[in-house]
Amino acid sequence: MQLIIGNKSYSSWSLRGWLAVKASGHAFEEIRIPLRQPDTHARIAELSPSGKVPCLRDHGLAIWDSLAIAEYLAEEVTPLWPLDGAARAVARSVSAEMHSGFTALRNQMPMNLRESLPGKGRSPEVDADIARIVAIWKQCRAQYGGHGRFLFGEYCIADMMFAPVCFRFETYGVQLDNGANDYLQTMLAHPHMQEWKAAALAETEIIEAYRV
Amino acid sequence: MQLIIGNKSYSSWSLRGWLAVKASGHAFEEIRIPLRQPDTHARIAELSPSGKVPCLRDHGLAIWDSLAIAEYLAEEVTPLWPLDGAARAVARSVSAEMHSGFTALRNQMPMNLRESLPGKGRSPEVDADIARIVAIWKQCRAQYGGHGRFLFGEYCIADMMFAPVCFRFETYGVQLDNGANDYLQTMLAHPHMQEWKAAALAETEIIEAYRV
Repeated sequence: MQLIIGNKSYSSWSLRGWLAVKASGHAFEEIRIPLRQPDTHARIAELSPSGKVPCLRDHGLAIWDSLAIAEYLAEEVTPLWPLDGAARAVARSVSAEMHSGFTALRNQMPMNLRESLPGKGRSPEVDADIARIVAIWKQCRAQYGGHGRFLFGEYCIADMMFAPVCFRFETYGVQLDNGANDYLQTMLAHPHMQEWKAAALAETEIIEAYRV
Repeated sequence: MQLIIGNKSYSSWSLRGWLAVKASGHAFEEIRIPLRQPDTHARIAELSPSGKVPCLRDHGLAIWDSLAIAEYLAEEVTPLWPLDGAARAVARSVSAEMHSGFTALRNQMPMNLRESLPGKGRSPEVDADIARIVAIWKQCRAQYGGHGRFLFGEYCIADMMFAPVCFRFETYGVQLDNGANDYLQTMLAHPHMQEWKAAALAETEIIEAYRV
């Protein structure tokens, strides 16, 4: 199994796909292609049908987009989604909402693990995105979290979909109330998140476009 | 089962969710909430946790976002995704790519079933989106279409994800070569697409914002 990703410092979609493969327990080879370099486009296009990262390659089959990669792995590794049907439906709902939405937050607070930029990137649209994300976190934990500390109790794909937002909240110093902050700290302390961040900080490329 | 949707003339996300429920064979009540009216926001917020359409309500459970709705229905109605594992992985890949991408096409060619606007909305970015969509259509049909005329042979969720694009290509008179045009015509002739379009044309609201 091979996973094609971009810079760990900047590529939020790559992070999601990488977390899914890590959670699946599969051994995999990581192919990191730094973004915005002269040969980036050609190198990714060679391996990923959409020309984008992440892309998973398994026995000659290419599966791209973080959500499709997660669903592919979830078919054989059941605990990637909640086992309860209603919880699973809601987990997919919030994952899909994150997947296609929150453009203000994504554009104005690009993921950047190499910087501390407290207070930057805020606007009324970003604040509305943050408020909705906090509402999702609280609602999911209250209704489906049980005794676990993740959105649906046990760590699952929905958490992975919000992982880049967690790094953004850290970088941009977004202040959260206790309930939301407890979830944020839970995510930031996850061993896979820590491993990703350490690797990001060891990268050598600095890309100015991800500095707001 | 209830499905909350926007205007059939304009709401591309609603179309996807509606096609999925139709394909599932479930009886459902349709709750149509016209967009961009003074009470639109309040009416949708009452029924949909994300404040967006579509939203499916089933036995008190709300499932929102077209892709999550489709996955929810696919868990009990197997043929909504291809039965073959590799085909299903690719079907989910192209569905997810459509779900989060193609912003130029979506912004510059809003779905509008009430107008004929040939040649409008074109730009280099839109042309690149069109080229990628055509490549997806051809690749899927060639590799997984078998003797069927849909992307993966039988009509499935991947086709539903591209359904709004089909209406857009019709409205904006996008010229396609024979292979891509055959798929487009197959989709436009699908009875569910025809039923949706007839209902759209019977709507009375005209919203100028969807006229480029």
